[in-house]
Amino acid sequence: MVKINENFLKLQKNYLFIEIAKRIKAFSAANPDADIIRMGIGDVTLPIAPVVVKAMKDAADEMGVKETFKGYEDSGAGYDFLREAVANYYKSFGADVNADEVRINDGAKSDCGNIVDIFGDGNTVLVTDPAYPVYVDTNLMSGRKIIYADSNEANGFAAMPDDSVHADLIYLCSPNNPTGSVYTKEQLKQWVDYAIRHEAIIIFDAAYESFVSDPDLPRSIFQIEGAKKCAIEMCSLSKTAGFTGMRCGYTVVPNDLEVVSEGGEKVSISAIWGRRQGSKFNGVSYPVQRAAEAVFTPEGQKQIREAIDYYRENAKIIASTLDEMGIYYTGGKNSPYIWLKCPNGMGSWEFFDKLLSEANVVGTPGAGFGKNGEGFFRLTAFGDRERTKEAMKRFKAMKF
Amino acid sequence: MVKINENFLKLQKNYLFIEIAKRIKAFSAANPDADIIRMGIGDVTLPIAPVVVKAMKDAADEMGVKETFKGYEDSGAGYDFLREAVANYYKSFGADVNADEVRINDGAKSDCGNIVDIFGDGNTVLVTDPAYPVYVDTNLMSGRKIIYADSNEANGFAAMPDDSVHADLIYLCSPNNPTGSVYTKEQLKQWVDYAIRHEAIIIFDAAYESFVSDPDLPRSIFQIEGAKKCAIEMCSLSKTAGFTGMRCGYTVVPNDLEVVSEGGEKVSISAIWGRRQGSKFNGVSYPVQRAAEAVFTPEGQKQIREAIDYYRENAKIIASTLDEMGIYYTGGKNSPYIWLKCPNGMGSWEFFDKLLSEANVVGTPGAGFGKNGEGFFRLTAFGDRERTKEAMKRFKAMKF
Repeated sequence: MVKINENFLKLQKNYLFIEIAKRIKAFSAANPDADIIRMGIGDVTLPIAPVVVKAMKDAADEMGVKETFKGYEDSGAGYDFLREAVANYYKSFGADVNADEVRINDGAKSDCGNIVDIFGDGNTVLVTDPAYPVYVDTNLMSGRKIIYADSNEANGFAAMPDDSVHADLIYLCSPNNPTGSVYTKEQLKQWVDYAIRHEAIIIFDAAYESFVSDPDLPRSIFQIEGAKKCAIEMCSLSKTAGFTGMRCGYTVVPNDLEVVSEGGEKVSISAIWGRRQGSKFNGVSYPVQRAAEAVFTPEGQKQIREAIDYYRENAKIIASTLDEMGIYYTGGKNSPYIWLKCPNGMGSWEFFDKLLSEANVVGTPGAGFGKNGEGFFRLTAFGDRERTKEAMKRFKAMKF
Repeated sequence: MVKINENFLKLQKNYLFIEIAKRIKAFSAANPDADIIRMGIGDVTLPIAPVVVKAMKDAADEMGVKETFKGYEDSGAGYDFLREAVANYYKSFGADVNADEVRINDGAKSDCGNIVDIFGDGNTVLVTDPAYPVYVDTNLMSGRKIIYADSNEANGFAAMPDDSVHADLIYLCSPNNPTGSVYTKEQLKQWVDYAIRHEAIIIFDAAYESFVSDPDLPRSIFQIEGAKKCAIEMCSLSKTAGFTGMRCGYTVVPNDLEVVSEGGEKVSISAIWGRRQGSKFNGVSYPVQRAAEAVFTPEGQKQIREAIDYYRENAKIIASTLDEMGIYYTGGKNSPYIWLKCPNGMGSWEFFDKLLSEANVVGTPGAGFGKNGEGFFRLTAFGDRERTKEAMKRFKAMKF
């Protein structure tokens, strides 16, 4: 009889966003005239840039002509034009990444999940808590042991390594989802040093790097000395250039990154990741890759900057409101997320209900991201400017 | 210390196409004026249809305007417009598939590989030999036991089930890559009955279904009674509509498909596959989905038919040549592949070298697809008409 992977039965249900939708639905049914403002979902709302639209349309035309038609991509790792554009982008902010270390994919989530394939199930996985649920769920699907590093008010929601605890695989996300906190170079260096001491690999999720405006803060783990010996980085154009519906990201695996097999053989992570992708992935749509290439042109960078600045201003509006109200939060600067402490010691869901019923504003209960999220709440800056202002006006008028 | 998945070290190197490239390179270097005709790779050469180009460009425009911009897809399973178009396509040739059983993906290879995640590693996997290497490699990566059902001259390269051998997961591909053989409905019914008796699941790769012109031959396993109790089907637009560089396919998981867990619980395969995809995939690019939708319109079907007919005519030219020469082959009808027996008992690689050096024609040695492939050779019909004719002229002039 065919056997399923029993680890799937141990997963928690995808409870968070289903429960949010259920509560909104119930509230809307009871209050059909309520003007609900949604600040819960981490999706962008501004359109993709004109130069990107044009690049995709030109590529679609190429696909319609025999002489310029593109079939399978030879390597499945991305066209050189895009791998080089990504490497140059990295170099522009001081990260040492070569084009042959970049693999193009259909979004950071896919590779964040799929990367588990190349590691043994006996690894101990460290995840900072609260965290993006994909890190936990994809490792639970492989039956791995997960340990947590607490991000909390005491450390500014930036968990730091503890040498008394051993981990083999370490998931870090900075700027962080959901907390908006950003590691400094010194902090990341501590993680890199820990990883090297423990012969561990860091899986670094840089999906929100384009929101970092402070030049002293790192946008890539490859700005940190030693990282190329112990880290893999995932990034995406989803938040950088509004690609959540276009689907394009990239994973950087350093050429030097090696592990020692049971038999004592040095094994290149890049080689086995390439083998995994070669059997389970066939590359990204050519017109999507051309669209992504346009993002990295000078004109593209200028155009996407407008949208990022727009979201940043939203974040500032939210952060200023919290400052005025004297509410503790992380993020808001160098991040599209604002992670606030629920007023008066309220629980995450209690605050969700109060915000929805009294201000008709929807956010995301922090408890949904891990145990340290209880009592906290995530708001996002990806909405409309006037709606964001209106939401903050209503929030300020609430009584706690 | 971080541990890799040691199963990767047991995989064979991706030897086949690297070795082919090496031999071509050596031959070209020694014979710089040779006019080489490539009939080895299973990639299309005709451009995508005008109606598809237009749909993609229109969707790119939508992405550039705030009111019509699309971010994350809610489910990641594909937009309803495309899931419904695929379901209607299935119904047009008598396969009972509902829109909510269709999940859109970035190509059949991804899901053929990723599907292993949801099954336990203790399953016995049956693969027909010769086969598309992905079935074998992705299961070896999970450390699974693989058994083979022989496809050979005796059964017309259409392996049939043997009740004395037990399997839990069964990979079938019809029309077959590499042999071009197509199961009849009666033959597929035997596989479905076997799967039901053995409480196994069939993973059916229908990537070449659009080449079936004989209305009596099945294009989907869901034309077979009982299949919805025991089968998952992967298909793609790669060969149907020239989407090898566009990247769009679909997987059908019947709503009724269930397995019993160790604890005796009935588990929906669709639910756990959805859970896997929810954590490791974020849907297909919106403009690609609109392009795919256009394939299924009446105008799209008319336009793609021209390219398929063109390739079919190429296949006929190859098959006629082999008929004239009295060479045994399978495929060529209802398939873009022609699988021929190397003349005079030659080995696959011996014939490769002879064809390359004497006719300057490149094909794929059958030995690269499994042990039953030794002594056989694959030619593809995806090339240019005049080049295909020229290749066959040269082939006929060879002496064996």
